[in-house]
Amino acid sequence: MKSRITKLFGIEYPIIAGGMVWCSGWKLASAVSNAGGLGLIGSGSMTAEVLREHIQQCREAVEDKPFGVNVPLMKPNSAELMQVIAEENVPVVFTSAGSPKKWTGWLHEHGIKVAHVVSSSAFARKCEEAGVDAVVAEGFEAGGHNGKEETTTMCLIPAARKATSLPLIAAGGIASGEAMLAAMVLGAEGVQIGTLFALTQESGAHEAFKRRCLDLDEGDTKLLLRKLSPTRLVKGGFYDAIEEAENRGATPEELLEIIGIGKTKVGIFDGDVEHGELEIGQVASLLKGNDIEPVEIVMQRLILEYEQALAGVTEL
Amino acid sequence: MKSRITKLFGIEYPIIAGGMVWCSGWKLASAVSNAGGLGLIGSGSMTAEVLREHIQQCREAVEDKPFGVNVPLMKPNSAELMQVIAEENVPVVFTSAGSPKKWTGWLHEHGIKVAHVVSSSAFARKCEEAGVDAVVAEGFEAGGHNGKEETTTMCLIPAARKATSLPLIAAGGIASGEAMLAAMVLGAEGVQIGTLFALTQESGAHEAFKRRCLDLDEGDTKLLLRKLSPTRLVKGGFYDAIEEAENRGATPEELLEIIGIGKTKVGIFDGDVEHGELEIGQVASLLKGNDIEPVEIVMQRLILEYEQALAGVTEL
Repeated sequence: MKSRITKLFGIEYPIIAGGMVWCSGWKLASAVSNAGGLGLIGSGSMTAEVLREHIQQCREAVEDKPFGVNVPLMKPNSAELMQVIAEENVPVVFTSAGSPKKWTGWLHEHGIKVAHVVSSSAFARKCEEAGVDAVVAEGFEAGGHNGKEETTTMCLIPAARKATSLPLIAAGGIASGEAMLAAMVLGAEGVQIGTLFALTQESGAHEAFKRRCLDLDEGDTKLLLRKLSPTRLVKGGFYDAIEEAENRGATPEELLEIIGIGKTKVGIFDGDVEHGELEIGQVASLLKGNDIEPVEIVMQRLILEYEQALAGVTEL
Repeated sequence: MKSRITKLFGIEYPIIAGGMVWCSGWKLASAVSNAGGLGLIGSGSMTAEVLREHIQQCREAVEDKPFGVNVPLMKPNSAELMQVIAEENVPVVFTSAGSPKKWTGWLHEHGIKVAHVVSSSAFARKCEEAGVDAVVAEGFEAGGHNGKEETTTMCLIPAARKATSLPLIAAGGIASGEAMLAAMVLGAEGVQIGTLFALTQESGAHEAFKRRCLDLDEGDTKLLLRKLSPTRLVKGGFYDAIEEAENRGATPEELLEIIGIGKTKVGIFDGDVEHGELEIGQVASLLKGNDIEPVEIVMQRLILEYEQALAGVTEL
């Protein structure tokens, strides 16, 4: 399982845990890093001082193992977050939702490795121009914010592979060792996994959110909010209100009013699955009926499944 | 490349050419069967007598090789089409867009093998109950009519694999040997390929349609018409009219009026890419810049890519 990704980040397995709002605190990030992957703290729901605390706790928990922070660049406090990241000597940053040119040079000056998340091969090319160290190509299947092109992982990974020679990480729809291997066959050298880790014991999400997400059928997440920023949401009261508004042709302004403020906290952190905004990947329906397990078990199973899938391929 | 699919249909490679309206006449179907795959005649745009002619021409072209017919079950003339299929001793039928229980028994009584196309694992289970011989699981990436769940190939194939023990064919987003192998890793035993074959020399589509589809960027096909029957369309005048109507909240009745009648013929067969309805898979953007090639070349490349991908995996 060695690849340019394991080498770049100094990790045992080419498995990165996506930095997800309300899920990816120091507990989840450190658990993934301690299990041989790369854990990311999701700063999208954090103030600079909260992030500092999570970084310090994560470092204590992982000792000398690497970990990283994900920074959505459209966040108003992204400059403050970056300052904390540099002060705390975080070794890796994953940037998303913005231009890879904005911070890559500055982060490199501070000795920090940079990966950038894209949803198209055009942005993968921009990553190469910006000098990032690795590209995450995230398909339509992924939870939360998503690309306007709606390109699925099956189509996006080969496109990103053609567009750039950078180390390539696949994301979206990957929650098993078989899917990991499929992503590798399509041209990836590592995977970023969100959903599977969001629903572990170490995830900061509320148990009610985890239980709801482990009870979804196919079709129970959908991409909505195309008029604002396409977002994959879980069905429920919040989802219904948006879908109803979109079906009657609501304007972006009307949609913003329905969304309100702080609804992901209500849904994911406070666990009000009816009124809050719930974000999870489409692949959740493949996990239906699973228990809320510790990261270590989840990682061990992933690796075993991957090895079995690899052995199975040689019989083809 | 031997699998339950090659054995079931008596073919050399587990590659099926989807039966596509206006594309899949006897020329395309026979070319695929002669190259070692299973060619399907797409009866969705045919009268019973036109289908009979295509079957007879196809038989003459393939000699003793197998071929099949795809029948969308919501077609008003599906009973007539089935009658012709039985009279002409077609060995294989792929049914879609309806219940697998409707025709499977009758087709089996006539000695015809049956595969059914699904977009969810719930329907894959119904296929098993109905006694079909193989299931085609088709993801969100696919062109034309699509499932309401919007489940992508990456998520759908493992779900269908869990749901049924029947021979499983993956469809949607597959236009290369790497994607074929990825589908096999996810649990498929064969692939149904549409887009790649729709754009060959032997496809019955107009050259202007093929050229337009070989010039698409990521995001140039989208799933629209969710209020009627979700359909992946290519951007253009027809697409714009529907998208504009949907954005302002058009009712199903208004949408039906915009769609009109016979627009796929205008777009795909007559080649009026501005006013006609254009249907192709999302994977078309990966073929951008390709020539319109003969099926034999396309098949040879697919098989070579598959073998190279398989050899590459052993290095992982």
